Order: sequence, then structure tokens, then C-alpha cells
Amino acid sequence: MDQMGTVSTQSIQLEGVRLQSGIYLSPLTVAYETYGELNEQRDNAVLVLHALSGDAHSSGLDADGRVGWWDGMIGPGKGIDTRKYFVICSNCLGGCKGTTGPTSVNPATGKPYGRSFPQITIRDMVNVQVMLIDKLAITKLHAVIGGSMGGMQALEWACGHGDRLKSALVIAATARLSPQGIAFNWVSRNAIYCDPATPVKPDESNSGFYKPGRGLAVARMIGHITYLSEETMQAKFGRKRKLRDMDGTTYSLGENQGLGGEFEIESYLQHKGSSFMARFDEDSYIIITKAIDYFDLVREYGDLATAFKDITAKMLIVSFTSDWLYPTSMSLDIVRALQASKKHVSFVEMDLPYGHDSFLVPQGMPNMTRIVRGFLKGV
Amino acid sequence: MDQMGTVSTQSIQLEGVRLQSGIYLSPLTVAYETYGELNEQRDNAVLVLHALSGDAHSSGLDADGRVGWWDGMIGPGKGIDTRKYFVICSNCLGGCKGTTGPTSVNPATGKPYGRSFPQITIRDMVNVQVMLIDKLAITKLHAVIGGSMGGMQALEWACGHGDRLKSALVIAATARLSPQGIAFNWVSRNAIYCDPATPVKPDESNSGFYKPGRGLAVARMIGHITYLSEETMQAKFGRKRKLRDMDGTTYSLGENQGLGGEFEIESYLQHKGSSFMARFDEDSYIIITKAIDYFDLVREYGDLATAFKDITAKMLIVSFTSDWLYPTSMSLDIVRALQASKKHVSFVEMDLPYGHDSFLVPQGMPNMTRIVRGFLKGV
Repeated sequence: MDQMGTVSTQSIQLEGVRLQSGIYLSPLTVAYETYGELNEQRDNAVLVLHALSGDAHSSGLDADGRVGWWDGMIGPGKGIDTRKYFVICSNCLGGCKGTTGPTSVNPATGKPYGRSFPQITIRDMVNVQVMLIDKLAITKLHAVIGGSMGGMQALEWACGHGDRLKSALVIAATARLSPQGIAFNWVSRNAIYCDPATPVKPDESNSGFYKPGRGLAVARMIGHITYLSEETMQAKFGRKRKLRDMDGTTYSLGENQGLGGEFEIESYLQHKGSSFMARFDEDSYIIITKAIDYFDLVREYGDLATAFKDITAKMLIVSFTSDWLYPTSMSLDIVRALQASKKHVSFVEMDLPYGHDSFLVPQGMPNMTRIVRGFLKGV
Repeated sequence: MDQMGTVSTQSIQLEGVRLQSGIYLSPLTVAYETYGELNEQRDNAVLVLHALSGDAHSSGLDADGRVGWWDGMIGPGKGIDTRKYFVICSNCLGGCKGTTGPTSVNPATGKPYGRSFPQITIRDMVNVQVMLIDKLAITKLHAVIGGSMGGMQALEWACGHGDRLKSALVIAATARLSPQGIAFNWVSRNAIYCDPATPVKPDESNSGFYKPGRGLAVARMIGHITYLSEETMQAKFGRKRKLRDMDGTTYSLGENQGLGGEFEIESYLQHKGSSFMARFDEDSYIIITKAIDYFDLVREYGDLATAFKDITAKMLIVSFTSDWLYPTSMSLDIVRALQASKKHVSFVEMDLPYGHDSFLVPQGMPNMTRIVRGFLKGV
């Protein structure tokens, strides 16, 4: 945090990382932010792991006045209290907000990787986070905390780096995505592939950052529907309409016929899609959703008990009653395997109506704060 | 049915229809098929109403060997027994299988309407069906039967034409779609709008039938996910993979890394999307999904009890436990309003795991057959 009270994203340069595929990706930049102070014992660090569309800017205001994506949770006196903890949040590998990803320049061509960026995995993302923690000379994290894809990373941390963390909080996540989740990611990517502004071949020169085209917006809208609960949609939008015409064609009829006008849910999604288009890269979207699809601890280890056998961290698994994309049953699969492996695990199913996004929305923050604060204190 | 045992779609030419919007659509063609014989009293006719992607060909084989979309239900000795009943099924107004729709030639321009086709409603579809019944000189239908959008039409028939039917079977339908359903239709249409092969303006000359482009395939894939239950997806596909690469790019990694290959759910959806693209028109898809979105008996009549006040038909409402798009709660809204209006109504929630499509899939046919047969007999 600077004198103006704003935070800025820092970055470190690393030589490279050997990906799970065998490919050596080099050079490697990791963008991250930190909040609070690392104590003398260097044992108060909390690593926060973002979801699909997140970035390193999780708390406070940046120079553009943008609020961090989990500002309600991270800060002085908040759930992750920056007066006590040194909080680290980095943009994931393959992202488009400072860490090496499809928008980075490929040294072999002098152009952005675009769609030729190698497929990365959740494990690759975590390996890069481990390098960052090494650079910050932190031997053992007090906790790793993540929701959705961040929760997958928290699981991967606990399974693969038992000696580097005391605890892991896994929110609205799964050890492997359902076929329904895979299906939604698949159609999202296909909406991008349909987009005329999208090059189909990796070597086309216009593959870069902030490309035009609505494919990414459609992908985001599909995702957004799956993050909301039907209950939230009913309460917030119902079947209310705006008076202006839908997509500007001659379809819509006058309100006097009981027809016409755009549904509010439609313009809400439209807004979400458009703003995402302006801030995210479609090749990152493709590569990260694939990493989510491929994440599968059962396939990788044979079964969950084996996946969890080296876990030493205290685990807290959180699910939401209204989350139909990552339902409680998936969290319970994790909990039962941890119990079977005699690990230290707690489980909370939170009765919140905001769907998969319950851990992110302001309305869920008071309840989430109690859980997170209690968890960090109990480690 | 001809001597070869195949059925062919017939059509009638009408002068035109006054749409709910006030527009007079002329000329008007209605494509339909019939099975069985109309009895002397002309009182054994059953009108079958198709869903979004259906057509007039609901039973038997056509000249191309294509099986009707509800062949498991309609035929000699089947749930709708064609030895007893005269079955009529017509392609809906706005469709692309013979009845006037966006692929029809606009007499004012000599070209297909394409995206300039006027927005039609569920009520308009039913009004055209009434004209067909008039032409066939049928005063009173034994029953109207429809699922999904067909169920909306069955409701509209019962509400608006009480003197023309003895009974209505409403399957997996709603008196008004949820905001979640509207949202999915909205992103589906946007996938079509993104498609480079899709003209954005209604007067572009390439607006016609069977246009290339994958937008319609993406739209269909989105729809298809919502018609399936998570349970079916798990049982049928799980996380199984095909060995060949996903979308032919360099992303996918070898099986030996535990990565790569295409998920079976993906190639299944791909197949569904591609085959739909070859048999459906995207402008029909747009206009019909909008008609579904706009259908709202509460908005139209003030409340459901008022909407139902002139109903004289015996009503049977059917829902499926695994249908998350048109859940049982929506059917119960209809049932309770009919009960409050002291109408003759029965309700069955069927415990079938096949999602919204439970009334269409072969696995659901034995149970569906018992329900439909009992209903027709009891009228």
C-alpha cells in the first residue's frame, strides 16, 4: 500500500517452470499483491487463491479506484485480518492479469502466445505459487484459502505440499468437476470458437489481448447463470422487463400487447458479459476452464484417500446450500475421504441463497467472515 | 400412411392469421400429419403439440426412414392408440418444417422472411392450430397433449378454447418460464448472434434456411444441457474421455500425463449440436425461444385463477422429479390455481431420472405410456 492508500500489483521474474505436460515454460512472471506485514517468525502468511475470473488484486483500491475482488474479506479487522496476517494473492498461471499466460509474449516468436499457450493444470498453477512463496522466503504458510477454482488449488496445495502449510480452507470446490460442469465449460469455449474475431489457428497474428467479439461475453453469461441460484434470480429479477426493445430488431411488440421489451435478467447478463469482455482475455478463459475440467484427484491418485494420504494441514471444507454447480455432495466426497484417511477435517454447509458465488457476494460476507475468522484463529 | 407404410407430412393453405401483435401474416401454410381414423362422430381426435425442436412428424417412418419424435407414444396399441384415436400433429407457427415461419418466402420481397419474420406467441401458434382443426371439421377434440412448449400450448388451448376440447394433458410445462430459463434462452440466442454466418440485420439476403455457422449448434448444446439431469449425465458419461484431441489444437496432452483427450459429454454435445444445425433454422430458433420467454398467463390474465376461469376440460398436469428447468414447483402452481378455481385437475409427479426430456426418451416411455393411456381412457 502506498501513501495514497492504494495498492499496486507487484511482480517477480523467474527463469521458468516445468509444466506437468513436460513443457518448460520460460521466462515466467508472477504478478501478486500483499497486504499486512510478515512477522519476524515469518509464520503469519495467508495465501488467497482466486477463482476463474479473479486476479492478484483481492483487497483495497488500486490506482484506478478498482476495489479488490475479496475486499469484504481481506483488510484490517476483516475476516482475514491484515493487522494479524500477511496476505498474499497472485494471479494464476495462464491468467491475463500480469502472470505469464496467453497474452504474454512468446520469446520464440516475439508475439503473444495467444491460443498456442501450452495447456496448464491446477497443479502447474500451484507449483508457480510455491515458487512465489519461496521467493518471499516463507517456509510454511499459516493457511491457504480459496473458493471454486481457488478451492481446487487449496486441495492441490494440501495434497502436494503438506510441509508448506498449516491449514487449508476449501470453499465451494470439488476434487473433480461434474460432467454438467464440464458441459457448461465446453459450450462456453464453443461460443468463443464461434466468434468471428477469434482466430481459430494459434499462429494467427491477431491473437492478443482485448480482442473484440462477443463470444467471450456469451461464455461469461453462461458461466454467470451457473454461479447464481434460481432463488436469487427470482428475487432479484423475476420476469421484470425493461421497456426498450430486445437487441434492437423488429421482433419486439408493444407493451400494450403484453409483449415486447427486454427482460431485466437479460440486460443484467448482457452487462456482465460486456464488462467481462473488456477486462479478460478469451485465450486465458479457454485455457483456465480446461485446467478446471482436467483437475481430477481421483484419476491422478487412484482414489481420494490416496490423494489425501500426505495431508498434514488442518482442513475446513465449506459448501453452500444453493450452489448447484459445485453442490454439497461434492464437498462431502472430500470430507468423507479425509475422515477415512483420519485427517483433521471440519465441514460447514452454509445456508446461503446466493449460489456458487455465495463466498464472493457482499450479502454473504457476514456469515463467511465468521467462518473464516474462526478457522484462522483455530489453526 | 401410404402403401409402403410410411407417413408423409400434408399441408393446408390458409389466407392468413391475425397475430397477437396486430400484424396480419399472409399467406399461411400449416404442415401436419395424422395417424388413425377420424370416427363418424368426429369425436376421437387427439392433438399432439410439439416442443421447441419438434415438427409435425411425430409417429411412424417418413419416406427418408426418419422415425417420428414421439413414435414410442403414438401408434397402434401404444399410449396414444391409433386404433382408437385420430391423432393430429402440426408444425408450429414460426417453425421451419413446413408451417409458415422465417424460412418461408415473404410475398412482399420474394425472399425468405429470415430475421424479419414477425414475433409470434404461443397464443398465435394455438390460433393456427384451431384453424387447422376447423379445416378438418372437428368441433371438439378428445384431448390436446403436449410437453415443454407443447405443454404451454395445451394450457393456452384449455384457457382460450374451452368449448373445443374435452381434456388437456400438460407435461413438464409452466404458466411462465423462470428467469433462469429466460437467461438460458437469452445466451442461446446470443450464441447465434455471435455467429459470423448469421446476418445481424433482417434484410440481409443470406438470411435463409440451413445457414452455416456454429452459433445454432452452441445454442442447441446449451439447451441440451438444461434438458438433461445431472444424474443422467453422471450415469451416461461421467468424466470418461475419448482418446482423440479436443478441438484439434495443440492444447491437449498425452494420456500418460493424466491429461488430454476429449470428454465424452463434449463429443456427445458436439454431435447433438451439429445434427441440429443440419436440421433446424436459426431464425426459427430465435423466434420460438422468444415466444416461450414471453408466454406468461399471470401477466396476461392478472393471475392464474383468472386465466383458468373458463376452463371446462379435464386437466392432467405431469412433472418429473429430475427436471430442473421446469421443476415440479411450477407444475404445482398450475395445479393449485386449477384447484382454487374448482376445475377438474389431476397431478402426477413422475420419479424419472431423465430430466426435462423424460417424456421423450425411450427409457421413460413405459411409465409415460401408462399415464397417457389412463388419461385418454378416463376422459
